[in-house]
Amino acid sequence: MPRRHRVAVLGAAGFAGALTARLLYRHPSFELAALTARTDVGRRLDELYPHHRVPLTLEDLDLDRHAARLDAAVVAYPHGASAPLVASLRERDVKVVDLSADFRLRDRDVYEQWYCEHPAPGLLAEAVYGLPERYRSEIASASLVANPGCYPTAALLALGPLAREGLLGDVVIDAKSGVSGAGRAATDKTHFVTADENVNAYSVPRHRHTPEIEQELAAMGAPLRITFTAHLVPLDQGELVSCYVTMHDRDERDLERLYADAYRGEPFVELAAGPPGVRDVRDTNICRISVHRDARTGRVIVFGAIDNLWKGAASQVVQNLNLMFGCGEGEGIA
Amino acid sequence: MPRRHRVAVLGAAGFAGALTARLLYRHPSFELAALTARTDVGRRLDELYPHHRVPLTLEDLDLDRHAARLDAAVVAYPHGASAPLVASLRERDVKVVDLSADFRLRDRDVYEQWYCEHPAPGLLAEAVYGLPERYRSEIASASLVANPGCYPTAALLALGPLAREGLLGDVVIDAKSGVSGAGRAATDKTHFVTADENVNAYSVPRHRHTPEIEQELAAMGAPLRITFTAHLVPLDQGELVSCYVTMHDRDERDLERLYADAYRGEPFVELAAGPPGVRDVRDTNICRISVHRDARTGRVIVFGAIDNLWKGAASQVVQNLNLMFGCGEGEGIA
Amino acid sequence: MPRRHRVAVLGAAGFAGALTARLLYRHPSFELAALTARTDVGRRLDELYPHHRVPLTLEDLDLDRHAARLDAAVVAYPHGASAPLVASLRERDVKVVDLSADFRLRDRDVYEQWYCEHPAPGLLAEAVYGLPERYRSEIASASLVANPGCYPTAALLALGPLAREGLLGDVVIDAKSGVSGAGRAATDKTHFVTADENVNAYSVPRHRHTPEIEQELAAMGAPLRITFTAHLVPLDQGELVSCYVTMHDRDERDLERLYADAYRGEPFVELAAGPPGVRDVRDTNICRISVHRDARTGRVIVFGAIDNLWKGAASQVVQNLNLMFGCGEGEGIA
Amino acid sequence: MPRRHRVAVLGAAGFAGALTARLLYRHPSFELAALTARTDVGRRLDELYPHHRVPLTLEDLDLDRHAARLDAAVVAYPHGASAPLVASLRERDVKVVDLSADFRLRDRDVYEQWYCEHPAPGLLAEAVYGLPERYRSEIASASLVANPGCYPTAALLALGPLAREGLLGDVVIDAKSGVSGAGRAATDKTHFVTADENVNAYSVPRHRHTPEIEQELAAMGAPLRITFTAHLVPLDQGELVSCYVTMHDRDERDLERLYADAYRGEPFVELAAGPPGVRDVRDTNICRISVHRDARTGRVIVFGAIDNLWKGAASQVVQNLNLMFGCGEGEGIA
Repeated sequence: MPRRHRVAVLGAAGFAGALTARLLYRHPSFELAALTARTDVGRRLDELYPHHRVPLTLEDLDLDRHAARLDAAVVAYPHGASAPLVASLRERDVKVVDLSADFRLRDRDVYEQWYCEHPAPGLLAEAVYGLPERYRSEIASASLVANPGCYPTAALLALGPLAREGLLGDVVIDAKSGVSGAGRAATDKTHFVTADENVNAYSVPRHRHTPEIEQELAAMGAPLRITFTAHLVPLDQGELVSCYVTMHDRDERDLERLYADAYRGEPFVELAAGPPGVRDVRDTNICRISVHRDARTGRVIVFGAIDNLWKGAASQVVQNLNLMFGCGEGEGIA
Repeated sequence: MPRRHRVAVLGAAGFAGALTARLLYRHPSFELAALTARTDVGRRLDELYPHHRVPLTLEDLDLDRHAARLDAAVVAYPHGASAPLVASLRERDVKVVDLSADFRLRDRDVYEQWYCEHPAPGLLAEAVYGLPERYRSEIASASLVANPGCYPTAALLALGPLAREGLLGDVVIDAKSGVSGAGRAATDKTHFVTADENVNAYSVPRHRHTPEIEQELAAMGAPLRITFTAHLVPLDQGELVSCYVTMHDRDERDLERLYADAYRGEPFVELAAGPPGVRDVRDTNICRISVHRDARTGRVIVFGAIDNLWKGAASQVVQNLNLMFGCGEGEGIA
Repeated sequence: MPRRHRVAVLGAAGFAGALTARLLYRHPSFELAALTARTDVGRRLDELYPHHRVPLTLEDLDLDRHAARLDAAVVAYPHGASAPLVASLRERDVKVVDLSADFRLRDRDVYEQWYCEHPAPGLLAEAVYGLPERYRSEIASASLVANPGCYPTAALLALGPLAREGLLGDVVIDAKSGVSGAGRAATDKTHFVTADENVNAYSVPRHRHTPEIEQELAAMGAPLRITFTAHLVPLDQGELVSCYVTMHDRDERDLERLYADAYRGEPFVELAAGPPGVRDVRDTNICRISVHRDARTGRVIVFGAIDNLWKGAASQVVQNLNLMFGCGEGEGIA
Repeated sequence: MPRRHRVAVLGAAGFAGALTARLLYRHPSFELAALTARTDVGRRLDELYPHHRVPLTLEDLDLDRHAARLDAAVVAYPHGASAPLVASLRERDVKVVDLSADFRLRDRDVYEQWYCEHPAPGLLAEAVYGLPERYRSEIASASLVANPGCYPTAALLALGPLAREGLLGDVVIDAKSGVSGAGRAATDKTHFVTADENVNAYSVPRHRHTPEIEQELAAMGAPLRITFTAHLVPLDQGELVSCYVTMHDRDERDLERLYADAYRGEPFVELAAGPPGVRDVRDTNICRISVHRDARTGRVIVFGAIDNLWKGAASQVVQNLNLMFGCGEGEGIA
């Protein structure tokens, strides 16, 4: 039996990092070698998150000591804070999957317009955008994978078949996310009394996932300016994107067949006849999609449902690690 | 002190009818003369809905007996079933506010495309569309008012100022509604376990509120085919419409001022700087609106939040009755 | 028309203070003269709480300036911080309703066992426990009223009729509260993702409302040590106490009649045939009670449902102010 | 590799049956040979429950044909309807795990007091009560296992260590369950708008799980009449029992040690220092327990949290099947 690959989660106290730790702790091909965090050091993860049942203790990061033992690291730091750590890990030849936005945008200028000065632009060239359904082979040979944002994951899977056929004319994406998407920080926004029995939009009109979606649509042959708006809905995990597409021409092809062809054999994309609900994909790595044409207007509507913490974050990290280390793509997450 | 106007709620066992009964029961200018229903006859309304605290008993409808005592009736029947009853009431000279869709669409053909054969087309000409912010004076002299659908109420208030200025190029409306919007019937869809921790679209791509919105936008000078999609979100009362507008030209006017001018003095429209939440309007007759321009794309985004059972149904009924009987517009609902 | 009584809410940024401000802002006999807070100074209350629609600005407290203009103050500070402020207000002859626990326990030693050193023990003698259904006349002539805790309010109304008849042998109270009861502070406990789809007990086995309930049961002739446990349930407003009573003897009297007699004429106590739900009393000053005898065991079960922010806090404040100033007991809250 | 045991789920359209089907469909040692139902025949289970991802079709029961192919059947019928089917299966030598109450109560008279005339009393003697932590060896050799009720499962695991030591004096159990516990039937009670933002008790004071708990406490040496009350809380899956115990004498032993000793090595019982939340056990076969002594009153409080659909129903079925067929106890559910 081959030695298991040693991996650490750096930033394991947050929602995405902790779930990644849970998945890797039970993964047949990885050994969860360390958990580090910037808060809650010294506490066990199963104290913070009893339902994950990971009996490991959060440590302070000791870069040299930790890196020496690792084959790979998952970095779950905020944007801006992540890139310097990723650079240090790459210098020590540790493979990285980064959950932040720091290496998702290939164009440094775009990053700096939407985020902040880039802390490690020299690494942008080697980063691969970690959407396996799109970049499977590049991920397999990558040393640095930028795990996609949750909204881009759902939106790109929903729109990809149309984008690649050159059918996208104009796109509006209206997204709804559960509150876990807002992170572990206790704020007015994440207070139960604020979110319960409520729905509202946020980050209007400039949500930072917009350029990420545009970049990848362009890479599929659809260089568009899209409209993207995110809403918070009163549930824990789950995310739905409702995509409204003005077709490039009055194309009449069979869209269900187009999607069936595009996703044949994809283990984590599921096509549904009717609009998917986020319950259908809770606690899975699956994106569930339906496509509808409104004969009255010619507009096409595509829905994509994911679990924002799984396919939108932690289980997609594991899917990427599986590809990077030659494991079965669904190991530990199917 | 003048005699109070005698009004009955016909169909008072459902959510909208019952709330209308509650509001009228405490109204200074109306006397709630009877409650009829097609289920639960013989039960008291405060048994079905303790929180409404209306200690009246649901009766079988006895048209002649009831009509003889009434100045007005609120009809809360399903579409198709409502029109014949409304016709009978109008023959007996009872004023009517109808909660169904039967008299909302002025064009019989459109009604019949989206609903069913019209049971009383002869009454279409006299019906007034009961959106007070748009048809205040017509309502004041009307004998038959068609209370708007919940989504059209929010959408038309959100888009009205742009429509009247001729600014609407293309419109996508993505709506989210609490589960009370699906009615009192216990079904798979309204089961707690289906709706909880879930979000999904329904009636795609042909929701019946679409032609109602189009009719009224056209009446404001914007004859468009719109895209309208409704979603169910896990909350009780509340509805948000997110409207994505491609402007007719690259108009640069100050939209906040446009909306402020349009709604100055309106007692039940509230303008907000940031995206409104449905909690902000719960249990009120208020529509809370924000307007945003995305400089990157030129697209305009308008949010409108209402309580689907109040401004989207029952309290708008009362607002209409107030106008029809010369009461203060906010009596009993402010 | 008589001048309205001038009242301020000190500590108006929290949930209970803000709702008190909303109720007083629309009260016919009170003028809401000022809102002070220890956070968010300079912000308008309708910015923090849009749904309360109180367009007043939160100020720093300036005791001399504020007190000079006031007939009464509502103090919504934490225990320990409240008493010194109350003392300063009383020195300036301002009547006070205090939402904290500081003046609820008549026995200083008991207070100090459960809370902290008492900051103003000299005022304990003049404080009246503000449960109107029990101390109506004392409140009417009081200058300092200690507004009861939310759990004691429900528990004492549920158990009072049995206590006064000497029927209580042993009492277990299992309480369930919505998350607003945990206050406005954003913490791990009030984070949506913690509370959603969850139920758990807290402050076991020494919840601070225990001695308050015991004090008042003793005052009714039932000097017991009770067991009281509180649970957090995933809803916003609402509180249910389930009281399990071992009767003092195998009393056989008609309990429904006992309760009907005890609460005849009480405007804010409602008796129900079946177990009340917290929805039945949302946004009201009502306590809804049902009483059941288990013939198999002889045990009596009493349920009491209130809205923890209304009857459990803010609307009971207004009920007390109404009594203190000779207004109708239900003014502004019925 | 040995042949997998052939098992069917009869009554697979309900919540518990469907989840059992999901667990067995992926079980390494069982083959899910058939799904039958009394509604929805002809539909695929993944159409009714997409998240279970079981692509099998619901059939009408054809007893001879089905039984001939089966090693075991899981029966998920309502009480009264289950027993005759179980009898027919046993006649055909099919082993059965029955989810109904029909074989839980050993005493026919008790069953008939709480339920209805017993349809198959002759089978009572051979039925084993399927709580593995209590009857592991009996289950291993049983042909008919009565799967415990959800509340008894949690209550008996919470109280067992005290019962077996003879410490139980008097017991009050206050239970809270998510709405899935009320079953798949769409009713007023399970309507989202009824359950959302609500808490209330039901079946007061005679909930049918009472005699089941009493029977098993007596079997452990604690013949008591208990008080048991169930409440519905607004969440999907999850159940908490809060047990209030008057100890038989003023026993002073270390309760945490008692519980640790009692449950050492139990794979599905977890002891917690603080009160467990139902989130901690969601989608698991685990019962999480904490025990607390109130020094002031001498009373002991024990909390037990389970997932009502897993340990309270479907995963406990699988645990029982594993024991009956000599598989690892945690196969397919760990």
